[in-house]
Amino acid sequence: MAEEAAVREQAETVRRLKQGKADPDEIAKEVAKLLEMKAQLGGDEGKPKFVLKTPKGTRDYGPKQMAIRERVFNAIISCFKRHGAEVIDTPVFELKETLTGKYGEDSKLIYDLKDQGGELLSLRYDLTVPFARYLAMNKITNIKRYHIAKVYRRDNPAMTRGRYREFYQCDFDIAGQFDPMIPDAECLKIVHEILSDLQLGDFVIKVNDRRILDGMFAVCGVPDSKFRTICSSVDKLDKVPWEEVRSEMVGEKGLSPEAVDRVGEYVQLHGGLDLIEQLLQDPKLSQNKLAKEGLGDMKLLFEYLTLFGITGKICFDLSLARGLDYYTGVIFEAVLLQQENEHVEETVSVGSVAGGGRYDGLVGMFDPKGRKVPCVGVSIGIERIFSILEQRLEASEEKIRTTETQVLVASAQKKLLEERLKLISELWDAGIKAEMLYKKNPKLLNQLQYCEDTGIPLVAIVGEQELKDGVVKLRVVATREEVNIRRESLVEEIRTRTNQP
Amino acid sequence: MAEEAAVREQAETVRRLKQGKADPDEIAKEVAKLLEMKAQLGGDEGKPKFVLKTPKGTRDYGPKQMAIRERVFNAIISCFKRHGAEVIDTPVFELKETLTGKYGEDSKLIYDLKDQGGELLSLRYDLTVPFARYLAMNKITNIKRYHIAKVYRRDNPAMTRGRYREFYQCDFDIAGQFDPMIPDAECLKIVHEILSDLQLGDFVIKVNDRRILDGMFAVCGVPDSKFRTICSSVDKLDKVPWEEVRSEMVGEKGLSPEAVDRVGEYVQLHGGLDLIEQLLQDPKLSQNKLAKEGLGDMKLLFEYLTLFGITGKICFDLSLARGLDYYTGVIFEAVLLQQENEHVEETVSVGSVAGGGRYDGLVGMFDPKGRKVPCVGVSIGIERIFSILEQRLEASEEKIRTTETQVLVASAQKKLLEERLKLISELWDAGIKAEMLYKKNPKLLNQLQYCEDTGIPLVAIVGEQELKDGVVKLRVVATREEVNIRRESLVEEIRTRTNQP
Repeated sequence: MAEEAAVREQAETVRRLKQGKADPDEIAKEVAKLLEMKAQLGGDEGKPKFVLKTPKGTRDYGPKQMAIRERVFNAIISCFKRHGAEVIDTPVFELKETLTGKYGEDSKLIYDLKDQGGELLSLRYDLTVPFARYLAMNKITNIKRYHIAKVYRRDNPAMTRGRYREFYQCDFDIAGQFDPMIPDAECLKIVHEILSDLQLGDFVIKVNDRRILDGMFAVCGVPDSKFRTICSSVDKLDKVPWEEVRSEMVGEKGLSPEAVDRVGEYVQLHGGLDLIEQLLQDPKLSQNKLAKEGLGDMKLLFEYLTLFGITGKICFDLSLARGLDYYTGVIFEAVLLQQENEHVEETVSVGSVAGGGRYDGLVGMFDPKGRKVPCVGVSIGIERIFSILEQRLEASEEKIRTTETQVLVASAQKKLLEERLKLISELWDAGIKAEMLYKKNPKLLNQLQYCEDTGIPLVAIVGEQELKDGVVKLRVVATREEVNIRRESLVEEIRTRTNQP
Repeated sequence: MAEEAAVREQAETVRRLKQGKADPDEIAKEVAKLLEMKAQLGGDEGKPKFVLKTPKGTRDYGPKQMAIRERVFNAIISCFKRHGAEVIDTPVFELKETLTGKYGEDSKLIYDLKDQGGELLSLRYDLTVPFARYLAMNKITNIKRYHIAKVYRRDNPAMTRGRYREFYQCDFDIAGQFDPMIPDAECLKIVHEILSDLQLGDFVIKVNDRRILDGMFAVCGVPDSKFRTICSSVDKLDKVPWEEVRSEMVGEKGLSPEAVDRVGEYVQLHGGLDLIEQLLQDPKLSQNKLAKEGLGDMKLLFEYLTLFGITGKICFDLSLARGLDYYTGVIFEAVLLQQENEHVEETVSVGSVAGGGRYDGLVGMFDPKGRKVPCVGVSIGIERIFSILEQRLEASEEKIRTTETQVLVASAQKKLLEERLKLISELWDAGIKAEMLYKKNPKLLNQLQYCEDTGIPLVAIVGEQELKDGVVKLRVVATREEVNIRRESLVEEIRTRTNQP
């Protein structure tokens, strides 16, 4: 009865909604009601048709994927540490209001938590805003830190191209008031080091500056109020052709065709130090204070990058805009140009694998007195890199080990479980990585097969004769060589043979 | 106007609720409406009073905390790897229905995500249920894996005692059909190794078996339907005295006083192999099939633990119940007995730091055909361990380094920024961990002070004379010793002096 009434009421509201008679408050309430009904349907009706899956846009990492992931993380972390970074961590969710107003048009992609009667919470969308909140909250004005953690975006997933709703970001940021472009140059050096180290094939790092973009918009006749939205149109230029972006600017965003065409001329420019010099002479741009500042700093940046010897991979590109609202100065994005491996080229589309920039205003948004802390940082997009390496590994013959076990403790006869347990315990206590089969009386053949399957290099075999003689038979899986080792020398022998301390 | 009407409507509903005239559906809808109003108040009203904090029950980890955290993780991970475990990872949220019906009375502590028009999602409550879902989904019947990740519980936080709403679990589990108690014994060995390694002071690992508990309940006259709820009463015995638990069983749970008193006699027993033998002779328990099975396995477990040499820290304790519904066999929990450090004793209360058990039915709950995969595992409660180590470190004089930087690239005169950039780039490219101050003309004193503050052991000083001579002046911060090193030997010299490859 109550349900019937509810449905009738709902129908009435829908009718009024269609006639435009319902106000937004009413709509919100109806949505809340519908969601409540859905939640009750899902939870209470005995055994629902159960779907065995991970949530949309997410995935599990099995042992093989994890082995690849650890390799990539190690490369990235050792680069961050090489540059003297500390490490921090923040909660996976933040107060909803912490994230509000930081992401422009992307805010709709934020995951909110259900209000269960406490604070309103959202899953973090990136690591940059939590970092800024952390700095303001702890009144830190000076830090170089990295942070590797998962972030969440209710975006359209494209998993084969490494686009997920839950994905890792690996961020390195430098906060503090410093002489211009020195930390900015280090961020680009870091991207260069990591991408070279991971051997992902050829890449280019595009660089631009928000001040150059804003100055350019101004001299092209884009009204101030439209800078940000035109910026996010420009940002699409790496995916869609200019004609499409042009019609979005004219149609959706309501910019005059003349202004759009002037913008079009600039955003198709890219080059190096020569282009910077050319634009510094540009009669219109050079009159604009912001653009001049940005171009001056861009020149300085290129000088520092020359000292680092990496300008070969750097491209000053006026079409690079980056979507996020909080950037205030230099911005950059690294793009893979092509795969070395033919097989991979077909399945993984190339694209952005790192990005970042300067955001001098973000910390001030959190400080009660608006005190600013200038920041510049870079984020490595690890998922796309995983996808490439995963598919490359699958295409290759390489067999990847998922454990580090040095030795299997085995027995040649029955009734030796107790002896195996005693021996393996000795090995563990000495720091040796050891396994045994969880069977009372395993066959020797099965034990050897297990080593073949998992890549364990050594087998320590206990038998009655060996026990009497005070030795253990050590077998090298690869060569089938067997030697008797005195029990007290076994640990040392295993260490030597596996080169692990 | 619309608001006024809503408030009036709300008041009416509250009145009817108090009179018991509203049905649950109506209540749910009213709650949804109120939450909606709250959400709108928070989001839309211009600049709200902004609170700069992390969500309740969560915290940031600064560089110092992270340094401690990495130490603890390293100890735990190397133990897991020593035992041949692979590693996996799963998403931070699961489909809501994946978690439904797995946690008994604790289900109310699960964080749900807001329904934003897709699947209904919840944050994971532990790593065990996602592991079981992973096994069933991938049809894995045999694996030994570890998983270290954050889990979420809307519990009452007690942060000084290391109880958070977001916290790490470090899980090690063995899945597969094996001979009895061999994997179970290994889990206990792992707890013993980790707690010994971390030097947290004296500890004891309590062990029991769900079958012994269930058998005991049966012979005491507890009805089958009350096993689980009485189990969770028994589980409170480590925190509250028997009298309180007794009155909960009689009052809230409606058990007869006679049955409760019979339970009371058993749950106050604890001991070792002798107690197991005694209970195997107990006229009532020995007649119960479940209890007999459990006691038989417990005896076997103690035999294996004797071979591992760790029975000194193991206590068979009939009051150990563990709250979660999914355990089916052996259960265990490690408790710190006292702190070595007087200062710490006052602020950190001792308590459980690891727990686990056997759950043979959980994977089957996810398999369409109910195929079971027996599992046993252990979870290390890292947060309490952090709290102890953090407070211990604060009390001590030990200065903890938060970076690994080997050398600071410094200059003795002005106008040498370019030379510093060139040198540091060379060092980075050679794999040396190097920093420099982000200033054009930093004072030498400030550069040396930075090394003192952050613990950087070496300074590579470039000066005009050194550049002419093709050398770099290397200064040892601790001893103030200075030597000129030929530029081409610098990398090798730094490596030797910092013992880092």
